[in-house]
Amino acid sequence: MEQTPGNTRGLTLVFTGNGKGKTTAALGMALRAWGQGMKVLVLQFIKGGWKYGELKAAEKLGPNFVMRQMGEGFIKGAGDDGLEAHRAAAQNALQEAKKAVVEGAADMIILDEINYAVHYGLVDLAEVLDIIRSKPPGVHLVLTGRNVAEEVANLADLVTEMKEIKHPFAAGIPAQKGIEF
Amino acid sequence: MEQTPGNTRGLTLVFTGNGKGKTTAALGMALRAWGQGMKVLVLQFIKGGWKYGELKAAEKLGPNFVMRQMGEGFIKGAGDDGLEAHRAAAQNALQEAKKAVVEGAADMIILDEINYAVHYGLVDLAEVLDIIRSKPPGVHLVLTGRNVAEEVANLADLVTEMKEIKHPFAAGIPAQKGIEF
Repeated sequence: MEQTPGNTRGLTLVFTGNGKGKTTAALGMALRAWGQGMKVLVLQFIKGGWKYGELKAAEKLGPNFVMRQMGEGFIKGAGDDGLEAHRAAAQNALQEAKKAVVEGAADMIILDEINYAVHYGLVDLAEVLDIIRSKPPGVHLVLTGRNVAEEVANLADLVTEMKEIKHPFAAGIPAQKGIEF
Repeated sequence: MEQTPGNTRGLTLVFTGNGKGKTTAALGMALRAWGQGMKVLVLQFIKGGWKYGELKAAEKLGPNFVMRQMGEGFIKGAGDDGLEAHRAAAQNALQEAKKAVVEGAADMIILDEINYAVHYGLVDLAEVLDIIRSKPPGVHLVLTGRNVAEEVANLADLVTEMKEIKHPFAAGIPAQKGIEF
């Protein structure tokens, strides 16, 4: 664990909102931190299955940039059975997250789409708040996903809302490599 | 140059707004694209001098991830002489950007803080619009910076406004490694 210099301290950052750029902003911070020699851990709630570019990138970046997809993929349109599978996966991810944060397993820990997981009732808000409160002072914690809970935002040092002004899907342009995955 | 598959095409993306996450979202997209084997070029307007984490990261990522700081650093508080130096640097960066885009020098080209450079009058809006219009179909172009010009937003496929809800500087917490640089 590398200590942050001077009177700085590890921050809790939230990227939320309905616009594109939440996960990618977290990934950009991860890249920046990694560039500074810090260790990064990304736990992806929800996302799974797809071979996202970030996963391929992480494999190339070595042991200081660890990324784990722990979700079941797209959640919209999942039936009751599907939602149960999502819930089990999210619970599993939450336990991993709790352990990693308490132990300070990395200098920057990113819980990708965790806000969305709370919103869908896949994980308990109270447990997420506990994770934030248990963060060691030197660790940066980043939580992404739309519909952040007010209580999470209240605990955070920084909250940015990514607001969709214009999106290509609305113009009928499909998801594509390097942009959405 | 890797071709985008199917009926997809290169997009023009804008990250603007007063919140944190614009440059980092662009960097995250760069990381994702790089992970997919695409070539990335980042030209940083405004920024210069500081040893940002992304610059150190880019050095480690090899020839498919090229980043160039072409600015003069912080612009606020620059006097008339300072502004002239900023303008010269931005003009230089603009010529580089124009050349790179027209030639399709990378699969993803990021013009970091260019919106800000337009806003400050360091580069002409008309020239930026020309660059966007000259983009080869297969290239993704990303423009970041607050105060995006309406004409730029109109030409873009995607616009996200990063809106500041809460920022640690407001709480007296200084800029720190891995977060701001």
